[in-house]
Amino acid sequence: MTSADPGASAGPGADLGLLSPMRGAAGETGDAAVLRALLDAEVALVRAQAAIGAAPREAAEAVAGAAREAAFDLPGLVTRARSGGNPVIPLVEDLRAAAGPHGAYVHRGATSQDIMDTALMLVAHRTLGPVLADLGRVAGDLAGLAAAHRDTVMAARTLTQQAVPTTFGLKAAGWRKLVLDARDRLRAARDSLPAQLGGAAGTLAAFHPEPPEPGPDVVGLGEAPERPEPGPDEVGAGGDPGLRLVARFAAELGLAEPVLPWHVLRTPVADLGGALAFASGALGKVAADVLVLSRTEVGELSEGVGGGSSSMPHKRNPVRATMIAAAARQVPALAAVLYAALAAEDERPSGAWHAEWQPLRECLRLVAGAARDAAELAGGLRVHPERMRANLTLSGSTGSARALVERALKED
Amino acid sequence: MTSADPGASAGPGADLGLLSPMRGAAGETGDAAVLRALLDAEVALVRAQAAIGAAPREAAEAVAGAAREAAFDLPGLVTRARSGGNPVIPLVEDLRAAAGPHGAYVHRGATSQDIMDTALMLVAHRTLGPVLADLGRVAGDLAGLAAAHRDTVMAARTLTQQAVPTTFGLKAAGWRKLVLDARDRLRAARDSLPAQLGGAAGTLAAFHPEPPEPGPDVVGLGEAPERPEPGPDEVGAGGDPGLRLVARFAAELGLAEPVLPWHVLRTPVADLGGALAFASGALGKVAADVLVLSRTEVGELSEGVGGGSSSMPHKRNPVRATMIAAAARQVPALAAVLYAALAAEDERPSGAWHAEWQPLRECLRLVAGAARDAAELAGGLRVHPERMRANLTLSGSTGSARALVERALKED
Amino acid sequence: MTSADPGASAGPGADLGLLSPMRGAAGETGDAAVLRALLDAEVALVRAQAAIGAAPREAAEAVAGAAREAAFDLPGLVTRARSGGNPVIPLVEDLRAAAGPHGAYVHRGATSQDIMDTALMLVAHRTLGPVLADLGRVAGDLAGLAAAHRDTVMAARTLTQQAVPTTFGLKAAGWRKLVLDARDRLRAARDSLPAQLGGAAGTLAAFHPEPPEPGPDVVGLGEAPERPEPGPDEVGAGGDPGLRLVARFAAELGLAEPVLPWHVLRTPVADLGGALAFASGALGKVAADVLVLSRTEVGELSEGVGGGSSSMPHKRNPVRATMIAAAARQVPALAAVLYAALAAEDERPSGAWHAEWQPLRECLRLVAGAARDAAELAGGLRVHPERMRANLTLSGSTGSARALVERALKED
Amino acid sequence: MTSADPGASAGPGADLGLLSPMRGAAGETGDAAVLRALLDAEVALVRAQAAIGAAPREAAEAVAGAAREAAFDLPGLVTRARSGGNPVIPLVEDLRAAAGPHGAYVHRGATSQDIMDTALMLVAHRTLGPVLADLGRVAGDLAGLAAAHRDTVMAARTLTQQAVPTTFGLKAAGWRKLVLDARDRLRAARDSLPAQLGGAAGTLAAFHPEPPEPGPDVVGLGEAPERPEPGPDEVGAGGDPGLRLVARFAAELGLAEPVLPWHVLRTPVADLGGALAFASGALGKVAADVLVLSRTEVGELSEGVGGGSSSMPHKRNPVRATMIAAAARQVPALAAVLYAALAAEDERPSGAWHAEWQPLRECLRLVAGAARDAAELAGGLRVHPERMRANLTLSGSTGSARALVERALKED
Repeated sequence: MTSADPGASAGPGADLGLLSPMRGAAGETGDAAVLRALLDAEVALVRAQAAIGAAPREAAEAVAGAAREAAFDLPGLVTRARSGGNPVIPLVEDLRAAAGPHGAYVHRGATSQDIMDTALMLVAHRTLGPVLADLGRVAGDLAGLAAAHRDTVMAARTLTQQAVPTTFGLKAAGWRKLVLDARDRLRAARDSLPAQLGGAAGTLAAFHPEPPEPGPDVVGLGEAPERPEPGPDEVGAGGDPGLRLVARFAAELGLAEPVLPWHVLRTPVADLGGALAFASGALGKVAADVLVLSRTEVGELSEGVGGGSSSMPHKRNPVRATMIAAAARQVPALAAVLYAALAAEDERPSGAWHAEWQPLRECLRLVAGAARDAAELAGGLRVHPERMRANLTLSGSTGSARALVERALKED
Repeated sequence: MTSADPGASAGPGADLGLLSPMRGAAGETGDAAVLRALLDAEVALVRAQAAIGAAPREAAEAVAGAAREAAFDLPGLVTRARSGGNPVIPLVEDLRAAAGPHGAYVHRGATSQDIMDTALMLVAHRTLGPVLADLGRVAGDLAGLAAAHRDTVMAARTLTQQAVPTTFGLKAAGWRKLVLDARDRLRAARDSLPAQLGGAAGTLAAFHPEPPEPGPDVVGLGEAPERPEPGPDEVGAGGDPGLRLVARFAAELGLAEPVLPWHVLRTPVADLGGALAFASGALGKVAADVLVLSRTEVGELSEGVGGGSSSMPHKRNPVRATMIAAAARQVPALAAVLYAALAAEDERPSGAWHAEWQPLRECLRLVAGAARDAAELAGGLRVHPERMRANLTLSGSTGSARALVERALKED
Repeated sequence: MTSADPGASAGPGADLGLLSPMRGAAGETGDAAVLRALLDAEVALVRAQAAIGAAPREAAEAVAGAAREAAFDLPGLVTRARSGGNPVIPLVEDLRAAAGPHGAYVHRGATSQDIMDTALMLVAHRTLGPVLADLGRVAGDLAGLAAAHRDTVMAARTLTQQAVPTTFGLKAAGWRKLVLDARDRLRAARDSLPAQLGGAAGTLAAFHPEPPEPGPDVVGLGEAPERPEPGPDEVGAGGDPGLRLVARFAAELGLAEPVLPWHVLRTPVADLGGALAFASGALGKVAADVLVLSRTEVGELSEGVGGGSSSMPHKRNPVRATMIAAAARQVPALAAVLYAALAAEDERPSGAWHAEWQPLRECLRLVAGAARDAAELAGGLRVHPERMRANLTLSGSTGSARALVERALKED
Repeated sequence: MTSADPGASAGPGADLGLLSPMRGAAGETGDAAVLRALLDAEVALVRAQAAIGAAPREAAEAVAGAAREAAFDLPGLVTRARSGGNPVIPLVEDLRAAAGPHGAYVHRGATSQDIMDTALMLVAHRTLGPVLADLGRVAGDLAGLAAAHRDTVMAARTLTQQAVPTTFGLKAAGWRKLVLDARDRLRAARDSLPAQLGGAAGTLAAFHPEPPEPGPDVVGLGEAPERPEPGPDEVGAGGDPGLRLVARFAAELGLAEPVLPWHVLRTPVADLGGALAFASGALGKVAADVLVLSRTEVGELSEGVGGGSSSMPHKRNPVRATMIAAAARQVPALAAVLYAALAAEDERPSGAWHAEWQPLRECLRLVAGAARDAAELAGGLRVHPERMRANLTLSGSTGSARALVERALKED
């Protein structure tokens, strides 16, 4: 095939990661994955409504089937997302059409933000599983290095200068501690990712038996379907119907149930941003040390599989560490955008919310890539104790280094 | 007194906050407070050494007395801090001189970073106490507003346009939830602030009975004092002497005991930065809403004590909200500097550590000011339900608003 | 077609912009466009070498033909880019293969960074053309508004409160001034975008007649091709052969000739980042005002084509302004990553350079989208002078407003 | 003297720089200097009014005398600045009192922002003079190094690994190029720093012969003084009285005359922030290289006066480079706050403006310190060509290095 437009098959504007080799989690974070999560949220909504008797069970199954089977035109959705400023509006149109006679049950009573926020929480949840596994592998490998090198003496360096002796075991134990801290923070953030459901203004008004309030920046409800008979698990169910629906919706998705709709109470996104910034920095510390210690003139560490030059056998670049370091330079700034979005006016802000989407995804990608690269790095790291000894220009005891390693390795 | 140099009494370069009226915690975060914390750390070190028999009790008392009684030349310390790049080096010189014959016990075995980090954790701890109290007041006042206005209908606004009705009670309950989230995160960060003690390279080598290794970027130890007799609580004490000293040092200061020296494992600073960014954003949300709702054309809220113009009775500026909003624009960027500092090379980095000090202090000041301003704001906020009703151009139910408020107010 | 993987045709990780409806310049910034620019750079290099007699003319044409005709596997390049940390390495392999017997002339003497930096400058250049045109349209429309409304009185608002009268003409003239400032800065940045050519370490050593030094993190040179006869324009050409080649290379591409290779002298990227941050903020000012003035309770402006709700005729969201505002929240943080990358160690840093690529592209996309949205916004903006008059609660003169508008409109 | 409150003489909240040894320009940027600039702006305003006949000359002299002679209570001003959210309001009260019967001419027609913005431009102008001089010294010293070492061969390093040979002369010439770029950008920013004068809403209404409109968030005008006779240079002066006053005001202060009042057209602040971020990064590049090349194991450079340890003769820390690197980590984030402030709503925003003050000052201080430290660093840098040769593991030509140095040194 010849082509004047290289890569045209992916669409002219597609970003596959050519400028971000430090990214990971392509499959969990690409537009197709986001689209899948948006559909999952819509399906869960109608299923939850069916479960509490607010929609027929056949409608739920029809919508689920449409979401599963229909072909959605992703590039078209991207284009159509512009006019209303979010992709949910055109997607609901398409899903309604695909669901045929049950289409009116799609997105009933919801606002775009309910679906968008829920979908991004799903994307985050799905991305963080492999990330946590990678961090676990890193921690395991570092524990092995710490134990193996608890008596491997090397120079401690402060402000670039050799200071007094330390051990490589203590260094590795410190790296592991940071990685465990990162894992703890990401796991806590993941386990509290909540579903979002509030309706047009966060009052859940449209989910009450009264005729639903059509939300304003919301896809229209279409013709009002007949109210179905109360289903079995609605019988005797007490409490507010809106709150019951939220609980059921969250349960359908395996996400946490929020205390309040959080359209403008952005704790989940800010917490996630902070945990991701932490993780990128924690891995960035490991990379920073590897980069110093694999310098030609230091030579105390080298990456198992260096990269960079097929032609220059004398040069093995610490590419994995470089990628991790490059990610660590980007995530804090992106997380700052997320923290700044907390100060969102009204019941839906005109900009702060929209500004979160891509930076949040980019943080997820960069941390996923850094975790993957760190796993490769830690798994293949070559330690050169003889260079450590040879470089050491100073003598002295290593003090509590061994005791510290032992204590640190007990932590989990 | 007349002066061609206005404000000269504070020193030519003094920053008292003239350009930061949104700051708070002057007394807890100013240079005098930092100096006090640095001295507290030095005193705790020698006391801890005395407690485990590594220094005479008289030395500890002499150093404590010198730290308490001596006049330290703060401007001089600032000047002298430049050559070594931190203020601990000249301070130790002065404290040794002040401690007279016991001066050799000052800073024994420690590195500058041990004292600096510990002091900044003390400063943070002391600052956060009043901040947490202010946030508690804000939450209490917002609970009162939420309860009082659970049936006060107003327009929900999304993308600047009136959408459907909500209640002011639900809005206030949402604000309170964010403030409680902020309080939780700051309290958790405060309660885990650790002491720092590792010696020149984090191995605690200089705290071992063997002749201490003088740390390289460390104030010199002076003449080696005679080793004191083991004190009573050293007798029979098991374990590593370095680790025992760290535990005692932390206990002296009321800070947490770290698992490892954290010279380059910056979890405490990153966590603190994240919690502060969260808090500034949470309060920023309250301010953003107050600013919208107190617009001349909206008029649904007004600050109890507006500010700005002695001459224009028609204008009452929402100054407290403005100050909070201004703080919320600064803290995320500063927190990004702290997150970026995680990726610190070696056993002490050449820049990343030094770059934390002032941004961390500035975050503390800005959040302290925002919490104080929020307490004034929430305590004096005037709600105008008649304007809320008059502005509302739409009808409809408020759905679960009441149930949500009730549920949210049960949280603490 | 039915599919369990929606959007699969774009590849699982493809980002088409689903989460960034505020983006523009898809065609100029997507991976296909980057790939095209990378190929353009490679072609220009061999053409420049041919022009100075360092390569046969047939080789240049063969490489150009291969770059034009061959199908490159973009997803495969993305995958293969990981091992060396940049996409140039696998691309050169493919281009060599496609160029057949002339393949050895591909990338001769260059380093990956020469091609990558040059390509990104081309991408920036191509993106900024339409952006400048959009800004020109915005400025033109704003000039029209300023002239038409030079006597349209409205309330000036400070700290959210009505202050004294101003005119909408003065407001529009101010917006225009900012837009012109943005255009000036972007144009200056664009016009100085330089080509990059330095070889492995920035010394241009491999472009000297002596046997070229194969660069270490560089694609191998393959078999050394025979040195061609000096071409006509090499005859009598004075000066350093490396410098002559750089001049020719830049001329081939229509980019500026650099004084020095700028592998680690990142002035062009930092300047571009600053200009883009400026532009996003300048347009963000316009958006911020539109958002306030189109509030339901203010109603002095409305977007020509509001967006958001097919079902709620009462609500017309200011979507274009919202998109611009959302872009303005992201670009400054991304530009900060670019400024921070100035502090790059060595002759090629291990992270700082790689961290520029995606943030630079994202800044370009966001500003391109904001400029496009601003053109739509300014072109369709509806002004409601009667609401301006009705809202105005104060009287007083508008002072120099008219004179200021006249002066401002003379600027260009 | 003994004291329980160390440093109490500077006030409990005073920040003298204890946590920022990388700062400079204390005398130009401290609160006293800001106060002086605020007074200069007030004096220039009344002088300009006198010059165009809008105030009596005696009033101008009386106000100037009061500003020069009176003692202003800086800590008191800081405290009183809180209620209105800026220090100009209480300062005008004090200056009026000090000016006695002429007090009513103080601040006539101005808004707080006129004075605040003008004062900060003065502070920037005064700070940048010495900074530009320092950068000139750095460039001069680097030119010397580049010339002296144009044939000093050393290893080029990419991704931490030795690549091919380069020369230290080329490295120094590159540093110099960046420093000159920084100087150009700072000089351009400085030379366009404008005065600010617009009155309450930027219309200059209060400066028209009609009874001035008292600005709302403005200090009251007190009793209306009698209108003075037109002064000599008002006779025959054509044009708008507001614009004439602005021109005169700017001339009084040596600042540029703005096209429009720029209360919410923040080009000057954004440009300044960008230039400062550039400068910090440019110097950060020099520091990054010095830090690598002075590592114990590399040893190719050392600072003339290392710092850090009185006790450890074996260790000479590169403290100046460390300070510069620490500054370079802070300025981009602060500049991002300034860029983000461009998107300011209304005629005076509720937060974006106030958020600029301290970050702008901090950027100035950090760049001033970095420039000073760079001058010390460049002036005393020790080059060790023998280590450069010994470390070099590779052979090869240095290509165009000499020609590049020669070309670069012609630039100015």
